[in-house]
Amino acid sequence: MTRAFIIDTDTASDDAVALIMALRWPDVDVKAITTVSGNVPLEQATRNALYTVELCGADVPVYAGAARPLVREPSHADWYHGKDGLGDRGYPPPQRPPAAGHAVDALIDTINAHPGIVLVTLGPLTNVALAVSRAPEIVSKVSRCIVMGGAACTVGNVTPAAEYNIWCDPEAARIVFHSGLPVEMVGWELCRFDANLLAVDISYVRGLDTPLAQFTLDCNETAMQANFVQTGALGIALPDPVAMAVALDPTICTRRSQHWVEVETQSELTRGMTVVDQLGVANDERNRDLWRPVVSQAPNVSVCWEIDTARWKLALYQVLR
Amino acid sequence: MTRAFIIDTDTASDDAVALIMALRWPDVDVKAITTVSGNVPLEQATRNALYTVELCGADVPVYAGAARPLVREPSHADWYHGKDGLGDRGYPPPQRPPAAGHAVDALIDTINAHPGIVLVTLGPLTNVALAVSRAPEIVSKVSRCIVMGGAACTVGNVTPAAEYNIWCDPEAARIVFHSGLPVEMVGWELCRFDANLLAVDISYVRGLDTPLAQFTLDCNETAMQANFVQTGALGIALPDPVAMAVALDPTICTRRSQHWVEVETQSELTRGMTVVDQLGVANDERNRDLWRPVVSQAPNVSVCWEIDTARWKLALYQVLR
Amino acid sequence: MTRAFIIDTDTASDDAVALIMALRWPDVDVKAITTVSGNVPLEQATRNALYTVELCGADVPVYAGAARPLVREPSHADWYHGKDGLGDRGYPPPQRPPAAGHAVDALIDTINAHPGIVLVTLGPLTNVALAVSRAPEIVSKVSRCIVMGGAACTVGNVTPAAEYNIWCDPEAARIVFHSGLPVEMVGWELCRFDANLLAVDISYVRGLDTPLAQFTLDCNETAMQANFVQTGALGIALPDPVAMAVALDPTICTRRSQHWVEVETQSELTRGMTVVDQLGVANDERNRDLWRPVVSQAPNVSVCWEIDTARWKLALYQVLR
Amino acid sequence: MTRAFIIDTDTASDDAVALIMALRWPDVDVKAITTVSGNVPLEQATRNALYTVELCGADVPVYAGAARPLVREPSHADWYHGKDGLGDRGYPPPQRPPAAGHAVDALIDTINAHPGIVLVTLGPLTNVALAVSRAPEIVSKVSRCIVMGGAACTVGNVTPAAEYNIWCDPEAARIVFHSGLPVEMVGWELCRFDANLLAVDISYVRGLDTPLAQFTLDCNETAMQANFVQTGALGIALPDPVAMAVALDPTICTRRSQHWVEVETQSELTRGMTVVDQLGVANDERNRDLWRPVVSQAPNVSVCWEIDTARWKLALYQVLR
Repeated sequence: MTRAFIIDTDTASDDAVALIMALRWPDVDVKAITTVSGNVPLEQATRNALYTVELCGADVPVYAGAARPLVREPSHADWYHGKDGLGDRGYPPPQRPPAAGHAVDALIDTINAHPGIVLVTLGPLTNVALAVSRAPEIVSKVSRCIVMGGAACTVGNVTPAAEYNIWCDPEAARIVFHSGLPVEMVGWELCRFDANLLAVDISYVRGLDTPLAQFTLDCNETAMQANFVQTGALGIALPDPVAMAVALDPTICTRRSQHWVEVETQSELTRGMTVVDQLGVANDERNRDLWRPVVSQAPNVSVCWEIDTARWKLALYQVLR
Repeated sequence: MTRAFIIDTDTASDDAVALIMALRWPDVDVKAITTVSGNVPLEQATRNALYTVELCGADVPVYAGAARPLVREPSHADWYHGKDGLGDRGYPPPQRPPAAGHAVDALIDTINAHPGIVLVTLGPLTNVALAVSRAPEIVSKVSRCIVMGGAACTVGNVTPAAEYNIWCDPEAARIVFHSGLPVEMVGWELCRFDANLLAVDISYVRGLDTPLAQFTLDCNETAMQANFVQTGALGIALPDPVAMAVALDPTICTRRSQHWVEVETQSELTRGMTVVDQLGVANDERNRDLWRPVVSQAPNVSVCWEIDTARWKLALYQVLR
Repeated sequence: MTRAFIIDTDTASDDAVALIMALRWPDVDVKAITTVSGNVPLEQATRNALYTVELCGADVPVYAGAARPLVREPSHADWYHGKDGLGDRGYPPPQRPPAAGHAVDALIDTINAHPGIVLVTLGPLTNVALAVSRAPEIVSKVSRCIVMGGAACTVGNVTPAAEYNIWCDPEAARIVFHSGLPVEMVGWELCRFDANLLAVDISYVRGLDTPLAQFTLDCNETAMQANFVQTGALGIALPDPVAMAVALDPTICTRRSQHWVEVETQSELTRGMTVVDQLGVANDERNRDLWRPVVSQAPNVSVCWEIDTARWKLALYQVLR
Repeated sequence: MTRAFIIDTDTASDDAVALIMALRWPDVDVKAITTVSGNVPLEQATRNALYTVELCGADVPVYAGAARPLVREPSHADWYHGKDGLGDRGYPPPQRPPAAGHAVDALIDTINAHPGIVLVTLGPLTNVALAVSRAPEIVSKVSRCIVMGGAACTVGNVTPAAEYNIWCDPEAARIVFHSGLPVEMVGWELCRFDANLLAVDISYVRGLDTPLAQFTLDCNETAMQANFVQTGALGIALPDPVAMAVALDPTICTRRSQHWVEVETQSELTRGMTVVDQLGVANDERNRDLWRPVVSQAPNVSVCWEIDTARWKLALYQVLR
């Protein structure tokens, strides 16, 4: 018994680690990887995904998709992930080409072919928005849709209010969040303190002494440096591997709740903010999980508030062995 | 030696308690109270302020101000504070009339007459915005400007993203936040868990058995009920008395930091949100107070993140004795 | 020698007349018709397109497409075109089903198969936006893209600032207008005074005494009545047949110029407005055609400012014979 | 019998001409001039107003007002009117200082003292918005409020959609347009072709050979040049003198109608646009003046659509003699 996965990714350094997790996870069968413009331009994202697949010795088709957001101008993050998105280590080009066909068609066809499939998104939601707009029937065939993106507690990383993936293509995110897909939102704030490899963790990974462990540290080198310059803290923040871990093992998310979540598309100041309706109710600690909504809209997103950091690290270490 | 205060308020139940705190505080001399449309219409707010002043046996002029927000339509909160804003207990009309003159002129004249004065705002910022637009020179004569309003951690009370006072008149808030006034923002979220009188606290206040203690509980009765219906929790949330406590004793705020804060005026979804630039930096607990900005704008607001709940309650109890 | 056309339509009464024009035009070969949600829901639009094709005795595949706008909620216009979009005359269901496949794929495949094809859009631009986002290479294979939509002189028909087709799906319009497609915008204002059949014109069409002439008057009956109620004027306004006439014979447009045109997506008040950069320059009548831009953006749209009304009517009468 | 006027102005070159018109008009008594930041900074606007008053040998108090828009950053137009706003001719400083007191107070006091007064605004509406927010009772004491600003036909001069005065302080304009003031909007487009002095008109004015005629041509020299560079057309566009002419003689406006007009404050693309609800109704020329609204809002503005150009020029020439 295996579980079918399909992964949409703007493959840069932390996406690569997330891909490794899925490709190496015992009971998971990655049916396809689709790429999208985001951290790096589309072509580079596709090359990086192909390279990562080869590194894992896997045989998974990689389909290239949207080269730009639906409405907004493209905006990449090479200052963070390096010019090639993998820390500029000079990795060789992949040996196999991308699969024939467009990522949007691959999403539609793969989901139709594998009802119950798990969809994991690691980049801007352009491809997925195009797929559900073109073929709305697929939403009911996806059993879980784990989205790395947004910020439930509203501390943004590209603006004070917004996270990069959602900010990049807010209209696509709005489409996906209201498409009927069973979205589980894994916000970037989980990697600020929790999904963050500190010095001791990095030593441990280095000690594993495997090619995948080495690659994980190497390709995130520029990201670690950029993070240090920006925040003064030493560590490798890994947002995509958090989302992937929650996809692989839902119990790694230790607190989740359903909310109405809307994506801001109307203002530049708050562009791409994931507005979570979460009026708290409790006067004492025991009730802190009780939330009541301000607006009377049905919940459309399951928000992941907390992860079990230790188990997340174990999940990561396990695939790098 | 006394400290001069001027208080702008849309006087409803929690404003009244805050006024009592200032009027009864030993070393504070309230030079004027100015009223504004907000929780209740202007005329009712003025009546309530006058009534509260009389209840304290104080002799402070109350000036009526703006009857509506600058740009937006008025929106009151009588469902929460009662039709008269004081829990509909049928309090008698005040015996003295409002002072002659307009609140905006009173703000300008009082601040000019008392350089170093402390300005506390408990309602929408319409009056203050009009005052600083008409007389920008006053901003340098205010030593502190404590604003009850906004939500630093972005959990709104009127919408998922916004707090009532700022939401009511977001353009006024934007003007005030960028006016040069030394704004200290005391967000409403501090009263969700902390500045919230629970059953045991309410018993204690009742036991004080003074007219002011009784008034405090009575006039907040409908607010307590509305809060219960909305959140399922029993308690009296007191946002304005938190701001006032911080004004009276700055050390009651136990964590504060300077940030660039912008008020959202461009989108209906996030209207009135106080966007705080607060990229966190720390990987370990000790550094959780270190923040670095996402945008390169100079900080304009001192955000109050935490209060000493016990000392806040003591400050409140003390004035009700 | 024939010219290849592909037509995207939310087929209601004036769309039907435009389809008749293209299907009956001597040198035009309509390769495919694609339908979209707009005036009527998708399924009804598809039925109406099929019915019109059969009425013309034509053999053109009709592909169903997007059932809703990209981001916004659907909003139909049955109060204007009748519940079935064709004046509620009880027309029988079409005898043939829609073609297999999705409109977006049909657009991509047909354009790729017929480089130089003319694309005419008569409804919201959802399908075309999805097609160019999914397959950007098609834009260079379209020789002309005539868009019925927008209002160059900013007198809207659904709001003071916006025309229905663009207002319905402003994000799609923004995508299409900046896609690189050679857009020719035929605004709705051309049918206010010009492309409007008055009493004498209606008599003439009735006198033609052909099934197509009769259908043209019948299916626009509710539209005529709604127009009368709304404006007090008697007449059949035919926006789609104007766009089609300009597609069939470019010289029917007697004044056109290139402009930077942007679609408003950020404000509810002006949602869907087509903002045309058109600073006028002339002091005398001869120069009224000279325009200079306010913003320094390259023109992306050819705006049709005037039509030859007489020739437009002749073109219409000719196909109804 | 004289008519009382009060004029609010960001005095630059065309404002100066408008002031001359009012100060020299036989039956008009200008009670006060108030200045505001706009074309030039506040201090310069005040100097220019004082200089113009002295040039006319008049004795009218000039009050300085708001040094910046309510919410937006200031943005001046010295590239158009010259660094000093009067064509940089090196005019001497005025001999008298501004009147004591603030423009907002002067507006309130003067209007209260002269019920039935005519208010003419030639700049951003900051002062007037502050006055009506502070003292809403004044709106019923103004018999006419002629606003130079906006663009009824939506061809902007600072952006494709907006006119400078409204664009500068859109929130203030929104306040004023909905304040209850009897606003008559004189849009800038009237000076594109009509209120525009061409070569022959300029020769005529020069031939008048009076100091005021000479000043009119001199102070508008840089404006004429900027206009030529921008538009390729030779001429002196005089928006403020059109508004003043309509204020002095309402019959110079030959077509006017009441509309709901809203000011765009929510989008950067259309910021400051004056959205006029003006669905046209007519099928024939005779009915082109019939308009019906799209939105069901009561009209709040009388829009001036046309002026009698010849009479406008005569009115201007008459005061320059």
